[in-house]
Amino acid sequence: MPRTLTSDPTTDTPSTEALAAACQRASRQVAQLPTAAKNRVLEAMADRLQAHEDAILDANARDLEYAQKHDISAAMVDRLELNPARIAKMADALREVASFEDPVGRMADVRRRPSGIEVGKMRIPLGVIAMIYESRPNVTADAAGLCFKAGNGVVLRGGSEAFHSNHAIADALHAALDAHDIPPAAITLLPTTDRSAITELIQCDESIDLVIPRGGEGLIRFVDTNSHIPVIKHYKGVCHLYVDRAADLDVAMRLLIDGKLSRQAVCNALETLLVHEDVADDFLPQAYETLDEAGVELRGCDRTQAALPDVTPATDDDYGAEFLGPILAVKVVGDYDAATNHIAQFGSNHTDVIATDDLPTARRFTREVDSSVVLVNASSRFSDGGQLGLGAEIGISTTKLHAFGPMGLDALTTEKFVVHGQGETRHDLSTLT
Amino acid sequence: MPRTLTSDPTTDTPSTEALAAACQRASRQVAQLPTAAKNRVLEAMADRLQAHEDAILDANARDLEYAQKHDISAAMVDRLELNPARIAKMADALREVASFEDPVGRMADVRRRPSGIEVGKMRIPLGVIAMIYESRPNVTADAAGLCFKAGNGVVLRGGSEAFHSNHAIADALHAALDAHDIPPAAITLLPTTDRSAITELIQCDESIDLVIPRGGEGLIRFVDTNSHIPVIKHYKGVCHLYVDRAADLDVAMRLLIDGKLSRQAVCNALETLLVHEDVADDFLPQAYETLDEAGVELRGCDRTQAALPDVTPATDDDYGAEFLGPILAVKVVGDYDAATNHIAQFGSNHTDVIATDDLPTARRFTREVDSSVVLVNASSRFSDGGQLGLGAEIGISTTKLHAFGPMGLDALTTEKFVVHGQGETRHDLSTLT
Repeated sequence: MPRTLTSDPTTDTPSTEALAAACQRASRQVAQLPTAAKNRVLEAMADRLQAHEDAILDANARDLEYAQKHDISAAMVDRLELNPARIAKMADALREVASFEDPVGRMADVRRRPSGIEVGKMRIPLGVIAMIYESRPNVTADAAGLCFKAGNGVVLRGGSEAFHSNHAIADALHAALDAHDIPPAAITLLPTTDRSAITELIQCDESIDLVIPRGGEGLIRFVDTNSHIPVIKHYKGVCHLYVDRAADLDVAMRLLIDGKLSRQAVCNALETLLVHEDVADDFLPQAYETLDEAGVELRGCDRTQAALPDVTPATDDDYGAEFLGPILAVKVVGDYDAATNHIAQFGSNHTDVIATDDLPTARRFTREVDSSVVLVNASSRFSDGGQLGLGAEIGISTTKLHAFGPMGLDALTTEKFVVHGQGETRHDLSTLT
Repeated sequence: MPRTLTSDPTTDTPSTEALAAACQRASRQVAQLPTAAKNRVLEAMADRLQAHEDAILDANARDLEYAQKHDISAAMVDRLELNPARIAKMADALREVASFEDPVGRMADVRRRPSGIEVGKMRIPLGVIAMIYESRPNVTADAAGLCFKAGNGVVLRGGSEAFHSNHAIADALHAALDAHDIPPAAITLLPTTDRSAITELIQCDESIDLVIPRGGEGLIRFVDTNSHIPVIKHYKGVCHLYVDRAADLDVAMRLLIDGKLSRQAVCNALETLLVHEDVADDFLPQAYETLDEAGVELRGCDRTQAALPDVTPATDDDYGAEFLGPILAVKVVGDYDAATNHIAQFGSNHTDVIATDDLPTARRFTREVDSSVVLVNASSRFSDGGQLGLGAEIGISTTKLHAFGPMGLDALTTEKFVVHGQGETRHDLSTLT
């Protein structure tokens, strides 16, 4: 059910292509803003969000009414619903982005070359980011703030269920841009949630530099198949905890509880537990007791079932499944290699954890496991931009180009080479003229 | 005219997909090799190239014979031809790659977070690189060496004109891999130069992580349009030299001569000269004299022609043209903004140069010009991996994802997060159980 800002067919709505091109023009101005100017605008965005609170809540009420009429799930309604506290949180997130170090202009690796030239790398914005997302209206403000701070333009395409909320939030952000003489096109929210707008958007390869789809695998595959713009792909988060024979079992239990019970519907929650056979008899019963009490169903291999008779058998589909809920696949492995081979076969290159006190095993695990975040004796739930020290996170990439893992401000920039000389040439000019 | 290793139709040639998958399996072994082991293999590759000199020259003679029969241009024959000195140079390039710092395993940005966990970033190989290139057989050894050193597998698809030479070189490299118990599939040369093999190769998105097409714009667009694997795009190198009003005109002349006369058919040669009106009458006559004497045709705007009556008028097509030969487009500009606007309109985001002694102007140029290499008072010909300090270069990207500008070993890797803890959890466990 697409929803559109201008339902009047006589109104001239600009094309998606024209909107993306306008965003690109505006982005050139954003790219050149000094850090202090960007921070003032981000603070102003935060203030305007709170000043527009009534309008945003009114718009949100319309979206909630629409949701009730269209039998949208309670979970989605919860994600959609705004209140003064949630608006304040959105505003605070923008103020926090203002406080982050500005990556743009940072010089790295500056050195003199034998020729005499001085070479360095300067961090620069990517240009225009297209962001496609669903339900949560706070993404509108979060993504706009991060892209803006990194000197980029952003074209936002939110879900139809949050249509009015997103536009009310965008209005507040635009008021802040306008007050600072920055073209509102720098933060463009598409005026329609028609699916064809996504198709149009991801074909604007003249003006858009990167597409970040945040949603289900279907959306990501659709964007990747239909676009020649680079796409940040975030597929499943099938996170493993491997309890090594040399694990501190108390630590392992902490990681299991935090990884499975602190929040189940997130991509950094645990989905599979691998246990070394030497510690299975010690570890599995206490794991079962705690998880069973918390309502988590365990599905295990033959050896798991031998240790825990009440456990359901695991099918092949259970390994590699992203349950996002109260199910955990369990496997007893004969050695370290069996554990890492299992992760290589069933993992999703997202986040994997080992519990071990053996240094060589820990070092092998960090080198050999091909995931964007590899943790030793720490919870998978730390796989998050904020927790890892990126400030905030615009998305997580589970493929290796152009970023791998949680993406912060740096991942919204690239580097160019800057060279200073005093008339150096590569050739002896006397041989050329 | 595709050429194929097995012309016998009864022979079972493995499919391109099977070859790419075998390369991926081999790449996992390469990814884990310690630096010293990789360096020993690179040295062995160099030694084998020289030991196989006769076989390589025989194969090259067959390619040259084929070229003569098929009226291939003298320039291409020159690029194709091998001799003992060129083989020695290829071997030395591999020995040089052995001497480069290994990016794999390098830890960066290691810091403690408030939660107690220690977070760092570890550089890791990308996986498998597909390299598509033409004529020069040395690319076979160069690309294989760089990809191997960065811990990747590589699938090479060389041009049909160098078919036998490329296979003879690959044989030498495989002998070195084999002697060190590394599967030869780690360096795979496709057994056919049929164009359909390119199409098959770039669709192996399960096994190939990055495609680097080195060739004309047609090849690059073909690969980009037909692949969903990330592609390094190197379009034109339309390099500008802007001679500012505050330029040291002797320096400007040095940059002009080196940039235009040292080598004309390369992507970092100058194609357009922009001159500030205040210095045009001083600079243009001497520029004309030097270039005219060297056989370079100048094509200029009205104001250039006013200063230099013998200059041909420049058409719109001349600005933005990659002449790769003895032609230079010239324009007199009224101010700095006119110069950088011209570069923004006609440039190719590759390499641009300013000659100026004015600090604020130099600083604006480095910030504002959106090219992968921006130089102040230094020749455009320094825009090269070796000159910039990358060691060697596998290609140049003129788009910003995943790398921008000349790409060395680092651009053949990515980073993952490595976290160490002592049982830290994100949540207070007492609230969870």
